Amino acid sequence: MKEYRIAVLEGDGIGPEIVSEAVKVLDRTAQSFGFAVSYERSLLGGAAIDAKKTPLPQKTVECCKTADSVLLGAVGGPKWDALPGNQRPEAGLLGIRKALGLYANLRPAVIFGPLKDASPLKSEVVGEALDIMVVRELTGGIYFGKRGTLEENGVKAAFDTEKYSVTEIERIAHTAFDLARKRNRRLCSVDKANVLDSSRLWRQTVCRVAEEYADVELSHMYVDNCAMQLVRNPAQFDVIVTSNMFGDILSDEASMISGSIGMLASASLGGSGFGLYEPIHGSAPDIAGMDVANPLATILSVAMMLRYSLGEPEAAQAIEDAVARALVTARTRDIYSPDCGAVLISCHEMGDLVASLV
Amino acid sequence: MKEYRIAVLEGDGIGPEIVSEAVKVLDRTAQSFGFAVSYERSLLGGAAIDAKKTPLPQKTVECCKTADSVLLGAVGGPKWDALPGNQRPEAGLLGIRKALGLYANLRPAVIFGPLKDASPLKSEVVGEALDIMVVRELTGGIYFGKRGTLEENGVKAAFDTEKYSVTEIERIAHTAFDLARKRNRRLCSVDKANVLDSSRLWRQTVCRVAEEYADVELSHMYVDNCAMQLVRNPAQFDVIVTSNMFGDILSDEASMISGSIGMLASASLGGSGFGLYEPIHGSAPDIAGMDVANPLATILSVAMMLRYSLGEPEAAQAIEDAVARALVTARTRDIYSPDCGAVLISCHEMGDLVASLV
Ligand SMILES: CC(C)[C@H](C(=O)O)[C@@H](O)C(=O)O
Ligand SMILES: CC(C)[C@H](C(=O)O)[C@@H](O)C(=O)O
Repeated sequence: MKEYRIAVLEGDGIGPEIVSEAVKVLDRTAQSFGFAVSYERSLLGGAAIDAKKTPLPQKTVECCKTADSVLLGAVGGPKWDALPGNQRPEAGLLGIRKALGLYANLRPAVIFGPLKDASPLKSEVVGEALDIMVVRELTGGIYFGKRGTLEENGVKAAFDTEKYSVTEIERIAHTAFDLARKRNRRLCSVDKANVLDSSRLWRQTVCRVAEEYADVELSHMYVDNCAMQLVRNPAQFDVIVTSNMFGDILSDEASMISGSIGMLASASLGGSGFGLYEPIHGSAPDIAGMDVANPLATILSVAMMLRYSLGEPEAAQAIEDAVARALVTARTRDIYSPDCGAVLISCHEMGDLVASLV
Repeated sequence: MKEYRIAVLEGDGIGPEIVSEAVKVLDRTAQSFGFAVSYERSLLGGAAIDAKKTPLPQKTVECCKTADSVLLGAVGGPKWDALPGNQRPEAGLLGIRKALGLYANLRPAVIFGPLKDASPLKSEVVGEALDIMVVRELTGGIYFGKRGTLEENGVKAAFDTEKYSVTEIERIAHTAFDLARKRNRRLCSVDKANVLDSSRLWRQTVCRVAEEYADVELSHMYVDNCAMQLVRNPAQFDVIVTSNMFGDILSDEASMISGSIGMLASASLGGSGFGLYEPIHGSAPDIAGMDVANPLATILSVAMMLRYSLGEPEAAQAIEDAVARALVTARTRDIYSPDCGAVLISCHEMGDLVASLV
């Protein structure tokens, strides 16, 4: 029997409880589809700071590197906000992305049928359906460029550097074009080429890569315009490819537009199919441990893992179908309303329900 | 009789036609309120490139510097897109901001009563009213930091630098706190302090300035979260203060949420009350010269000029009231719909109408 080794990083806040439901669903799926899964837990973020005084212990990196795939809950919380930048939980997240070479972050923004009305946009603006894939560069740009503080004429200043090489842009462009090919063959590259040198190189390079993808329709958009267009007419987008910083902003905006943020999974991929999977939402420290969090984004992250990293597309589909069916009868607090026709259930009950439907 | 000298930069695309309606309205307002206005036109952007081979002729800078205030239409267009970055129309816009020391960009996002239904957001999301003021730092950050291209191991790369000094952050923070004081006393400072050194300095400095404004409630938000919150619950915001790059993105998102982008004016202010006023929307080359553009954002820019730079608040109010009344009976194409109860009119007819109502 095939066995997959999953590195599990529960992280902080609601991390442990949502991951535990996702593991429950994965175990059941493995039984049904005839493969085995083993888990190795290690520490990341605030949990690692508390136990090991560093947001990214070396052991965690090794555990992930030897695994077939990585499942992450969420990191961060007010408890660690006062720490210096490079010692905060977020530094662990950035560090693991870099250490594992996860340069491509795939963030789908989809509207789930039963949650159609949850979008803050008018239904005529949303249109028939919404299915955007934001491909965010994840190991370059201003997140990893040279930074520091200095004094000029007695005045303190601080700087960060947005830098991209042709190699970095080419590989993320390939990821995005390949994905667009499997979807609706439209790719929008987002930059600020009317101001930034790095954006001009970005645009040039994407244009050159495009020559290999004559079947994909490429367009370019400035980031400020894209932030508007996502609100004005999100259905115009199929795949969006952009830098680390712009992708951070635009993928969050897109996911909020879907109205289904508690439902959205993401994949961070390296070159070889290896990946880290996590929900888009944060660690929600205010509801941690209360068994009210929505585990569906994490459960759907497991589905993405089965599809993109483990080569088990049927198992992935089974989980996605189970989630769709679960939503019809039951909801966690964040997506529940008295007139939704479904009952209100807890985090662990949602895990049980989805597992029973796989 | 008091006389104000206005430098007029029509710019490109619809620039000339919208500016000409705004001048019409200002002339009529001057008559009614007993002051005189003189205009000196000069070239900026594509128009300057065509005539003078540079997007910002030195004469334009001097003309603006000796004026009491500056009125700008819009710059840019596909015609000049192939030029190198520092020779494009946008370079003229960035150059004039810097040359005039216009470090504070005020971008209101308001919903106009008669256009209440134009927001792409559901009415229950918009709530009773929307009145956000985005204060964007305008002469610093990645727009003006060191940039360039280089080769590393034979691979081409390009970089831009986000840099802020305490002095730059302090002065924009003061602008924002002062404004918040005249509004609802809530200021949200937006940064990416969990990643960027420049953002950490930003946050620290804003916190220090806040000690002088105990009557203003200060909050902090990460830029990705702000991009979401603007869509989820825009009414939570009063004044937002942020960097040049984040302000570019968030102010455009906020203005689109208002659904009234053809109506929104902006002010770019230096220290002493001197300012440049322009509509938020672009140069719309596709409809240039067709007399269908909406001149109201430019007309409202003149109102902002009267209020913030020329010390004529009653005249400003008269224009704003005239615009509100005009909207009830007539609309330009962008805000017209068959069931809006108003008639469809052209750009110059809208200028005539507002002028007649001042
Ligand atoms: C926590 C933070 C460092 C992180 C990022 O900005 O990448 C988060 O916002 C995300 O998008 O995964
Ligand atoms: C045209 C461009 C350089 C400019 C900017 O980014 O500042 C525009 O988007 C704006 O917001 O005024």
